[in-house]
Amino acid sequence: MTVQCETFSFEVHAEDGMARAGEVETAHGRFQTPIFMPVGTKGTVKAMTPEDLTDQIGAQIILGNTYHLYLRPGLDIIRKHGGLHEFMNWDGPILTDSGGYQVFSLEDLRKIKEDGVEFQDHIEGSYHFFTPEKVIEIQEVLGSDIMMAFDECPALPCSDEYMRESLARTTRWETRCLEARTRTDCALFGILQGGTSPEFRRAHIEELCELPFDGFAIGGLSVGEAKDKMYETVELSTPLMPHDKPKYLMGVGKPDDLVECIARGVDMFDCVIPTRNARNGQCFTSQGVVKIRNAVYAEDMRPLDPNCECYTCQNYTRSYLRHLYKAQEILSARLCTLHNLHYFLELTRTARQAIVEGRFEAFRKEYYARKEHA
Amino acid sequence: MTVQCETFSFEVHAEDGMARAGEVETAHGRFQTPIFMPVGTKGTVKAMTPEDLTDQIGAQIILGNTYHLYLRPGLDIIRKHGGLHEFMNWDGPILTDSGGYQVFSLEDLRKIKEDGVEFQDHIEGSYHFFTPEKVIEIQEVLGSDIMMAFDECPALPCSDEYMRESLARTTRWETRCLEARTRTDCALFGILQGGTSPEFRRAHIEELCELPFDGFAIGGLSVGEAKDKMYETVELSTPLMPHDKPKYLMGVGKPDDLVECIARGVDMFDCVIPTRNARNGQCFTSQGVVKIRNAVYAEDMRPLDPNCECYTCQNYTRSYLRHLYKAQEILSARLCTLHNLHYFLELTRTARQAIVEGRFEAFRKEYYARKEHA
Ligand SMILES: [Zn+2]
Ligand SMILES: [Zn+2]
Repeated sequence: MTVQCETFSFEVHAEDGMARAGEVETAHGRFQTPIFMPVGTKGTVKAMTPEDLTDQIGAQIILGNTYHLYLRPGLDIIRKHGGLHEFMNWDGPILTDSGGYQVFSLEDLRKIKEDGVEFQDHIEGSYHFFTPEKVIEIQEVLGSDIMMAFDECPALPCSDEYMRESLARTTRWETRCLEARTRTDCALFGILQGGTSPEFRRAHIEELCELPFDGFAIGGLSVGEAKDKMYETVELSTPLMPHDKPKYLMGVGKPDDLVECIARGVDMFDCVIPTRNARNGQCFTSQGVVKIRNAVYAEDMRPLDPNCECYTCQNYTRSYLRHLYKAQEILSARLCTLHNLHYFLELTRTARQAIVEGRFEAFRKEYYARKEHA
Repeated sequence: MTVQCETFSFEVHAEDGMARAGEVETAHGRFQTPIFMPVGTKGTVKAMTPEDLTDQIGAQIILGNTYHLYLRPGLDIIRKHGGLHEFMNWDGPILTDSGGYQVFSLEDLRKIKEDGVEFQDHIEGSYHFFTPEKVIEIQEVLGSDIMMAFDECPALPCSDEYMRESLARTTRWETRCLEARTRTDCALFGILQGGTSPEFRRAHIEELCELPFDGFAIGGLSVGEAKDKMYETVELSTPLMPHDKPKYLMGVGKPDDLVECIARGVDMFDCVIPTRNARNGQCFTSQGVVKIRNAVYAEDMRPLDPNCECYTCQNYTRSYLRHLYKAQEILSARLCTLHNLHYFLELTRTARQAIVEGRFEAFRKEYYARKEHA
């Protein structure tokens, strides 16, 4: 008999147009949607402590990467700690990806078979074999609160024939993921593929959303397609997905994308952009992007974002932040990451509040107006 | 008329053998001696925020580097912020070096003249000229609570003739520093040179300690000489230095050096070792050095130092810290730096307590016993 998760639930608290405000419960506590999930690829959200995430940023759930953690430090070490939560000292909810995306990105180093994917890792070049059963086993060792099913994310463009085959295999793999579960405290989300083709998307949603997943993710987007194609695909997908389960858009995105996809009914987001760009000195603010390395900020005594209440903006000038960046100081990565994540989380918090108060459209207009008046 | 500092004072609270427990007052508050001062070369103690330094580590005074800050971001930017305290958001005491040590390290790029030193900087290769008057002006712009006089630190070994010339010039330069002061809230320490020669050391102490500095530093040590030579030189120097002024040993050292030199009457220390070594995964603990990269720690579930109460040791295993180091995560530098600085500060705190309670020798023995029993 198939194991089901007993610790997971989702409730929609309010709706405003397509936008939704909800709450998810997991074995490690609740989080409110819409939500942005900071990415902690290798057992740390780069440059942040767990306390920074909770107290400074207001993060409610973070993401871990199965592929990276499986290779390093490896499952034995994480098992010995009792799971990823204990290993990295984060006791809130964790969502883990299935590793599929990373494995398929290896291109020349992987081989797709019916049973799974054989690949050579990028660190030591050793051979590994990921199957649906294997990635569930790994995620259960990690102790993930929300596991992701194993899917193929086909490189676009691809032929209709390949897409059809790939989608059918993905459905078979995801069905096997459901059957492979042994823990009742780890939820499992299905992943919807189909590229930017409305026909394939509809077909895959119809097929997959029949299955007893705890939530569903729109995969295969934000991989290089035009922005309007992404928005169209999201707009087509969310109404066809179950209303009473979370809708997660994987790997998205920039602040505009969050606003636009919340408007289209997405509940959950993750992306490396706020953390990665912070380390490159690219900061997201209510007035648009600030590239802190630019000479124009050398004597700028203002905070990064005059509308931001984060630690960085309350205590440091753009001039100081530029100095740290130019001097390649670690504190640069730290302060910019803290601000960027705070900005992303605050964006989802204020969007949620607007949805609850039935003024999401006004919120969306104000968001764009602020950027234009900068 | 020579300006004098009106905000500086020093009191000896207790003595135990040669060891002293005291308190220094500056324009930005007090600190208790013996003390270790974390180094914030470029306007940041690498990887740390000011809140980490005060709340997590218990730092009471930090060090800034005149040479580096003068070059980048430059004085205009720091002046615009109102000084280094405001620039870097640290409102406790700051001691700044004179830049002399860095300039003399440039070797082929500098030329010593009676008036000062001409040099090419290491970043852009531009020409600069540091005189005693110039380095006081820079340190007053930085708003340093304790400025250091401009001295020559001659490369060892050198001829007696060169040492004699150098010491005489250093005395002339330091005298000019006293005369160049304009601020009454910036203390000024003199620097004692003389290599490891007892004769030269005695002569320079005698000459310089007549001058109205607010404190005195033993310079020119920890530059490659044998450890016993360093201890001998410190032991010879401190009894000849004014009892009612702080005694600062520049650029020292490792934990053993702190214990040994506190025993020999030193009140203040600074060194890049705890911060630099932390970034290389070398951690100082009550049981000796832990090189966290070593495979032996891969599955070690213990904290870095079982006797340490720092944030790192309270929350993370050696296994996790090793993983962060191997994965080259920023959090590795952060957690190891936090621990190392906590360890150094805790060492001076417990040494002080032992002095106050008249049991410094027992403390010293216990310190070595702990390392041996590890
Ligand atoms: Zn901010
Ligand atoms: Zn510690």
